[in-house]
Amino acid sequence: MRLHGYWRSTTAYRVRIALALKGIACEAVPVDLTKGEQSAPGYAVLNPGRGVPTLILDDGTVLTQSTAILEWLEETTPEPPLLPRDPVARAQVRAAALTIATDIHPVNNLRVVNRLKAMGHDQDAIVDWMNGWMRQGLAAFAALIGPDAPFCFGEAPGLADVCLVPQLYNARRWGCDMTGLCRLAGIEARCLALPAFDAARPENQPDAA
Amino acid sequence: MRLHGYWRSTTAYRVRIALALKGIACEAVPVDLTKGEQSAPGYAVLNPGRGVPTLILDDGTVLTQSTAILEWLEETTPEPPLLPRDPVARAQVRAAALTIATDIHPVNNLRVVNRLKAMGHDQDAIVDWMNGWMRQGLAAFAALIGPDAPFCFGEAPGLADVCLVPQLYNARRWGCDMTGLCRLAGIEARCLALPAFDAARPENQPDAA
Repeated sequence: MRLHGYWRSTTAYRVRIALALKGIACEAVPVDLTKGEQSAPGYAVLNPGRGVPTLILDDGTVLTQSTAILEWLEETTPEPPLLPRDPVARAQVRAAALTIATDIHPVNNLRVVNRLKAMGHDQDAIVDWMNGWMRQGLAAFAALIGPDAPFCFGEAPGLADVCLVPQLYNARRWGCDMTGLCRLAGIEARCLALPAFDAARPENQPDAA
Repeated sequence: MRLHGYWRSTTAYRVRIALALKGIACEAVPVDLTKGEQSAPGYAVLNPGRGVPTLILDDGTVLTQSTAILEWLEETTPEPPLLPRDPVARAQVRAAALTIATDIHPVNNLRVVNRLKAMGHDQDAIVDWMNGWMRQGLAAFAALIGPDAPFCFGEAPGLADVCLVPQLYNARRWGCDMTGLCRLAGIEARCLALPAFDAARPENQPDAA
């Protein structure tokens, strides 16, 4: 199995964590987003959305979109589970995860940032843009997760934690004000103390600069 | 069951289609996004992300995030299915649906548009912004769906069609150039000829202006 990703991409980071939690070995294939490698014809044919990650299965099957890949991993390697069994509980975990995957990440994606630059905005305005969506989205995320527990929804990390930790990496990268979000920082610390999360950290990837 | 939504919201439109396809009756509760009703305290406590849709089950359980609601519907009312049975096929349908749900919709959301206005961009620049993401995302979507068939992945509509039809409604609203995307227009026409899609159309909602 091969995972095309980029060390700093939060969507690739999500998939690395889930693979590691489920104990699935996977070869890392770097796609340098800063050099535009996601738009190279050979890659764009695998991933028409020109993003990362792309997961190539051993039989050559190509899977794209991190959230779809996470659901596929959960269906094909159910243990340890990323989602609870009860349908309502599953929907609540997914809603929290999707608050990051739809309300925060896409609006701060590299292509959006590049578009804002092309529209004349400077780096300060762009950092303000990113941090604004992160503050707002992380506050919503904090309201959607379960009652106080070591992880987002209980005693073990799941889909919401898999999305949270990469987004908090990005939040720190851009100096996002985390006031009032200390429960999230506590969950992050407990996650990163686990070997699966630690192995998936951006700085532990072969393409880390 | 009550669905808090807005007639023109593409995310509420997705859920209306899925409910109708599965034959589930649901009371519509309008949330006027143009008047900021999504930020009223009584609503924001139900939906901390301050968006639509919000689905309230008969026992009072609150579900948010359209994609999480669609998965819940699929798990609790499996017929007719929105997803195939094979895990790889499910991942490929989800990847297409998520191309709309993560790469197009969030970047064109009302709150993003309002932020661009506050940053000094005029209506022409904003329409150009929206149409750019739609062109790019719909081209990726077209490359991700299955081979030629009446619907996105075969002989019946599923999760990808449920996301496509609302996004094409939005594309027409803003005059997006659909050149080269005629397969998508054909799928849209076949979907809208079905009673479930027709009943869910924005113009058939009680709050349509």
